[in-house]
Amino acid sequence: MSDLAALIDRLPPEVVVTDPDLIASFVRDESHFTPAGAPALVLIPRTTEEVATALAVAHELGVAVVTRGAGSGLSGGANATEGCIVLSTRRLSRIVEVDTTERLLVAQPGVVTADVRAEAERHGLFYPPDPGSVATCTIGGNVATNAGGMCCVKYGVTGDYVLGLEVVLADGRTMRTGRRTVKGVAGYDLTRLFVGSEGTLGVITEVTLRLLPTPSEAHSVLATFGDVAGAGRAVQAITQTRVTPSVFEILDRTTLRAIESMTPLGFDGSVGAVLLLQSDSSTAKEDAEALADACESADALDVVQSDNPDEARTLLEARRLALPSLERLGDWLLDDVCVPRSQVVALIEHVETIASDEGLTIGLFGHAGDGNMHPTVIYDGSTPEGRDTALRAFDRITASALELGGTVTGEHGVGRLKTQWLRRELDAVATEVHGAIKRALDPTSTLNPGVALPAE
Amino acid sequence: MSDLAALIDRLPPEVVVTDPDLIASFVRDESHFTPAGAPALVLIPRTTEEVATALAVAHELGVAVVTRGAGSGLSGGANATEGCIVLSTRRLSRIVEVDTTERLLVAQPGVVTADVRAEAERHGLFYPPDPGSVATCTIGGNVATNAGGMCCVKYGVTGDYVLGLEVVLADGRTMRTGRRTVKGVAGYDLTRLFVGSEGTLGVITEVTLRLLPTPSEAHSVLATFGDVAGAGRAVQAITQTRVTPSVFEILDRTTLRAIESMTPLGFDGSVGAVLLLQSDSSTAKEDAEALADACESADALDVVQSDNPDEARTLLEARRLALPSLERLGDWLLDDVCVPRSQVVALIEHVETIASDEGLTIGLFGHAGDGNMHPTVIYDGSTPEGRDTALRAFDRITASALELGGTVTGEHGVGRLKTQWLRRELDAVATEVHGAIKRALDPTSTLNPGVALPAE
Ligand SMILES: Cc1cc2nc3c(=O)[nH]c(=O)nc-3n(C[C@H](O)[C@H](O)[C@H](O)COP(=O)(O)OP(=O)(O)OC[C@H]3O[C@@H](n4cnc5c(N)ncnc54)[C@H](O)[C@@H]3O)c2cc1C
Ligand SMILES: Cc1cc2nc3c(=O)[nH]c(=O)nc-3n(C[C@H](O)[C@H](O)[C@H](O)COP(=O)(O)OP(=O)(O)OC[C@H]3O[C@@H](n4cnc5c(N)ncnc54)[C@H](O)[C@@H]3O)c2cc1C
Repeated sequence: MSDLAALIDRLPPEVVVTDPDLIASFVRDESHFTPAGAPALVLIPRTTEEVATALAVAHELGVAVVTRGAGSGLSGGANATEGCIVLSTRRLSRIVEVDTTERLLVAQPGVVTADVRAEAERHGLFYPPDPGSVATCTIGGNVATNAGGMCCVKYGVTGDYVLGLEVVLADGRTMRTGRRTVKGVAGYDLTRLFVGSEGTLGVITEVTLRLLPTPSEAHSVLATFGDVAGAGRAVQAITQTRVTPSVFEILDRTTLRAIESMTPLGFDGSVGAVLLLQSDSSTAKEDAEALADACESADALDVVQSDNPDEARTLLEARRLALPSLERLGDWLLDDVCVPRSQVVALIEHVETIASDEGLTIGLFGHAGDGNMHPTVIYDGSTPEGRDTALRAFDRITASALELGGTVTGEHGVGRLKTQWLRRELDAVATEVHGAIKRALDPTSTLNPGVALPAE
Repeated sequence: MSDLAALIDRLPPEVVVTDPDLIASFVRDESHFTPAGAPALVLIPRTTEEVATALAVAHELGVAVVTRGAGSGLSGGANATEGCIVLSTRRLSRIVEVDTTERLLVAQPGVVTADVRAEAERHGLFYPPDPGSVATCTIGGNVATNAGGMCCVKYGVTGDYVLGLEVVLADGRTMRTGRRTVKGVAGYDLTRLFVGSEGTLGVITEVTLRLLPTPSEAHSVLATFGDVAGAGRAVQAITQTRVTPSVFEILDRTTLRAIESMTPLGFDGSVGAVLLLQSDSSTAKEDAEALADACESADALDVVQSDNPDEARTLLEARRLALPSLERLGDWLLDDVCVPRSQVVALIEHVETIASDEGLTIGLFGHAGDGNMHPTVIYDGSTPEGRDTALRAFDRITASALELGGTVTGEHGVGRLKTQWLRRELDAVATEVHGAIKRALDPTSTLNPGVALPAE
């Protein structure tokens, strides 16, 4: 701690947290099986200048800095390292500007994503990205992880809405990337380099977001199937229609039962899988019919259409309960893989085989429309064998995604959970290039050391 | 040349062009006022391995390599430097794969963009980006410049369709970036780093593109106005509607007259500006009506709607004649700036002032819907004063875009034309970061030296 006196001296006392009890709440994110250490200090700066000072001094002192948004991450990206400084963006929580003519919104990184969406809505505009954690996660964390959500199948991911950033680099220098125009090709796309960089290249201190006009009221389709294979066939049938659903989610029996135990939705025991679909296009009604037809052609047990906005919201809220309700079944280890759309069924079959091989319950839900699935291993964490089995199942699932031509992470990021997997996904030269870029921007590896980057 | 013997020895003779007459056709792209030197050699490799060998040896020898697609660039990015090797992608011209289930297309970089679009169409799919040069430019050049076009206002730019790349680095190492899934966040977004990097970071040897379902047949609206200000008011009115046009172009009187002299379209002298609009949504008819109403509310002289696909194509072809027909008026210097949508009218007014101050004709056309305009200075290139005046007007236009909160290049790139302007647009730290990334990937500045990067 004594090394850090120089740092504490340079910052106003309100910014520095030294109370061990408080510090304890900044150690981990929501991931399991990820390493974390005890931070020496937590800083909660209120301005970009304070962030810059903190980084400049930390850099001089050679102390690691871990940036933290809401800590809702699922890969350990915001986990502290032993003796590090945790830099929380909690107080950088102002919406700076909404420009309705240009359809853009400027926010500090600590603004909660739901507040960004609500502010856009108040101006008759729409910010699409909606991770399941929308009510707690921050826009800075979303940019740093390139977060997805349910609407990605139609609207794309966080990065598709980022026009520009303000970033403080590892040594405290501040820069702007991007622009306020919709198009522009001046220089390298530094904005996209920081999007998804998981806090390893700089601290994002301001985000300029593109907004959309509010879409039409959604029409929903809820289709139940006897088993996951049936739902999988419907997924194929839907991708062959001309409809671009705005929501395209799948839930398996395990997940449904878990949700049912929190919020009874009335599914009976015959239901092995559910597809939850929406269209918010100007032909939403016709779209919903086409989606329902596709489900019926794949032998759905039951297909219900609705144009009631309250029902639509209830369905999405039920879907958001997938993870929280699976959590109640025991210890859990959530995966996040993305496979080519045509391989969703194969992935599901592999997961079922793995579950039965390992004698585990694996809940399966995810963004079926873009192949991004979240198999969730439920296990007994009280014994070493329980933990080993869970990890083995997790590894087999991730390997299976790679074999199917997919990626080891669709939206949750590499963090500290999947650094070895990133190395397996990238070829040797791409791995070297990752290292070269990290060294170019953070030569002393001050920022989030051990996160994301594959060991070279 | 003798230094290059080692290189010539390592490559099959068919790949090496030493004939001076042939070499002469590889010196410049389509830009004016950009420096170019005489290349020592042109290489036309047929495989990624030949590209890798060429770069490895050139790197050892310390010879600069300039990558060239079709040479249709408008900023000098493909211009040779004295004594360099020009590496043409002309023979890397194979469409490798079309996967209709995953909706993706894999192509070598030398495939002409129109052929990518046609191949997608043959499979009932749609590759949106459509630069004016679509019939000649290459997909590799489009990726390297992040090319735009008319459809960007609805569909985005080339980069929005690039899922992954194969790239040969400056020293001959080959890597893959990206993936075949629609989502994925494993590692830094190297794909986007290479998109728009104008050949300065690596040679793109394969491109994996995302395709879309074919949209509905477009409905068109052609609206004429007494002056550009009227068209500008219509632009504002249209951005306030809920319609997302798939084409949203503006042409001024000078450009119209030039086109008229090539292909008579029947506009009379009272027409000072034209808006060319389309919608290809499933409610295209209603959209066209809303667009027409917006034009009428801004006092259009005449508004014509059409649902005839042939008429739609004819209109787009007329629009594509803007630059070729302005070229016939004299020497020309084309600018490419992008301003916030609400500043299009202000930009137009500035350009008119500049034209009258400098006593020049400046044709004005562009992608009004995304603020990306191409003011084209017509001048007398036979005298030094003529050239000076043209350059001064060009600089004033570019400065005006920056003042209006815009960018110095919306889609044509920095090339050798705007390196000083890039420095003005970027802040000092962002400029340093550009240099750091260039050094990380190409430490000896072998690739396209002098292109894009601002001097530090
Ligand atoms: C119930 C639940 C549902 C979820 N659903 C989804 C989902 O649907 N889609 C999805 O993509 N994710 C989802 N997540 C994961 C998580 O919410 C996202 O990764 C989110 O983007 C993290 O935001 P955060 O503010 O909590 O960031 P944190 O967890 O605090 O940090 C995440 C990473 O970003 C870095 N970081 C944070 N802020 C900054 C900054 N300002 N500058 C630089 N780096 C920064 C951190 O260092 C860390 O590496 C879910 C999580 C939970 C618990
Ligand atoms: C009439 C006309 C209309 C045009 N309209 C538009 C328009 O609407 N929108 C638009 O954006 N542009 C437009 N352009 C500009 C130009 O066509 C684009 O910039 C196009 O992308 C260039 O492609 P090319 O194959 O000709 O590349 P080139 O001109 O050969 O090269 C362009 C740049 O890309 C690099 N490069 C090329 N291939 C590779 C590769 N495989 N790997 C790495 N680097 C590479 C070159 O080194 C150079 O820096 C127009 C040009 C003309 C002449």
